[in-house]
Amino acid sequence: MLEFLETKEQREAFIDQYDNFLFDCDGVLWEGTRMFDGVKEAMTLLREKGKRVFFVTNNSTKSRSSFLKKFEGFGIKATQEEVFSSAFATASYLKHVLKFPQDKKVYIIGMNGIRDELAAEGIRSCGGEEDSGLFDNEPVPDDEEVGAVVIGLDTQVNYKKYAKAFAYLQRNKGCHFIVTNEDSTFPQHGAFYPGAGSIAAPIITALGRRPDAVLGKPAQNMLEAIFAEYKLDPKKTCMIGDRLDTDIEFGLNGGIDTLCVLTGITTKEKLLSPDNKVKSTYCMNAFGDFAA
Amino acid sequence: MLEFLETKEQREAFIDQYDNFLFDCDGVLWEGTRMFDGVKEAMTLLREKGKRVFFVTNNSTKSRSSFLKKFEGFGIKATQEEVFSSAFATASYLKHVLKFPQDKKVYIIGMNGIRDELAAEGIRSCGGEEDSGLFDNEPVPDDEEVGAVVIGLDTQVNYKKYAKAFAYLQRNKGCHFIVTNEDSTFPQHGAFYPGAGSIAAPIITALGRRPDAVLGKPAQNMLEAIFAEYKLDPKKTCMIGDRLDTDIEFGLNGGIDTLCVLTGITTKEKLLSPDNKVKSTYCMNAFGDFAA
Repeated sequence: MLEFLETKEQREAFIDQYDNFLFDCDGVLWEGTRMFDGVKEAMTLLREKGKRVFFVTNNSTKSRSSFLKKFEGFGIKATQEEVFSSAFATASYLKHVLKFPQDKKVYIIGMNGIRDELAAEGIRSCGGEEDSGLFDNEPVPDDEEVGAVVIGLDTQVNYKKYAKAFAYLQRNKGCHFIVTNEDSTFPQHGAFYPGAGSIAAPIITALGRRPDAVLGKPAQNMLEAIFAEYKLDPKKTCMIGDRLDTDIEFGLNGGIDTLCVLTGITTKEKLLSPDNKVKSTYCMNAFGDFAA
Repeated sequence: MLEFLETKEQREAFIDQYDNFLFDCDGVLWEGTRMFDGVKEAMTLLREKGKRVFFVTNNSTKSRSSFLKKFEGFGIKATQEEVFSSAFATASYLKHVLKFPQDKKVYIIGMNGIRDELAAEGIRSCGGEEDSGLFDNEPVPDDEEVGAVVIGLDTQVNYKKYAKAFAYLQRNKGCHFIVTNEDSTFPQHGAFYPGAGSIAAPIITALGRRPDAVLGKPAQNMLEAIFAEYKLDPKKTCMIGDRLDTDIEFGLNGGIDTLCVLTGITTKEKLLSPDNKVKSTYCMNAFGDFAA
């Protein structure tokens, strides 16, 4: 039964029952370049109470250090270890869940954020921005070292990358097929552009099968990778987000509690509607209200 | 009930009941660079009997004049009007079925075969090989002249083309979304590469909807375009092919008779199997047997 956190007592009881909070950022902490009221103070309150916080983003194009600059700009304290991107989740999944062999490498369709996070976990890679040239119509040679193909958002994607990724996956049945996240679009310049899920679609179509793993919200692998990396107790962990179909479903899929805030895309009416099958454990108007 | 054309009398009766024959090429007339026995003579026989013949290919990358060179190389008589590619089918569909307005233009993801066939029907286009450079991350400006997006196989596909095609289709609800053919892969260099259906997949995923039209076999629009262009009587027309899931289904979808030859991918056992739901009207070992 969804509980609305209206009083100070309810909010304090909520905080006290968890050790770890996973945050979606846009729509919870800020909207674009505007931070919401009380966010900085509420975050300080959680830290003073000794809570662990993690920031969970589906954006795979940047390294975690690039994300930190946005936090710094808003004056919110955060460390690289607390920022969990789908690129880092992918690297962590390969290392901890798949035990990716040292003698194999990853072929990337994606930007340098993926390459950098794989390198940080000691995983070799090829492709990515190296292969941004035109397809020369030459045969794709076998490369038995390629043990996984990882696809994320790639604004330099081209046919050469698709031909290579498809060849490695089709010829080597043991090659893992991993997609960082399946957002079909992403907002930019006040419009929408094709997202990582769309960039991966040619390989899904050509192979006639789904990826072996999708890391980003709402897929469960992302949560498994977070738990593997940080050894968190699911019962003491709560996901805070504004989107039912990514953030809240992400928590529900993983069996952890969820808090839906109403500063983003979801209205109270939508959340409580009988048509809505994605119900959060808790709801409140704004994350900043914890500081009230 | 599937009839096997075994005797000369059966084969003559078959030919006599049709005025028009639509041919798949690879697996029926030739295999790669090798023409099958009797094909040249059988084709001459059809012409001597005054039959009209058409060659139907899903390949949209080349203009019809380029296809003619292959026929010439095998010594088979053919004219440009008899070669029906998915690029030409797309141009014909835009002109005859959609009555594409003169003040609109088509945005192309595809090679010059599409551009050339659109131009031959008097339809203006943009994109295609013009947009083969890298995506500069600039906003996609509106272009209200774009009345259709056509996607075919494009070995120079890139994010710039995807961003533009998606923007035009998403912003202008009246913009037609057309895919030349949906082959997920195509054979080349003894391997398979992502085909037109895979190249179109990011736009289908980003839009969250299917194309308004798919022209290539087995889709019915291709047949409608042939009938619109050549004013053929469906009752007097037979499709000859070797693939059940493209050629024979193509004929069945359009309500015309079909002949499956066994020189290509389909075996007699597969054709007659109770599991096979795609049954041709007729079957014979080889098209060249008409010359026997």
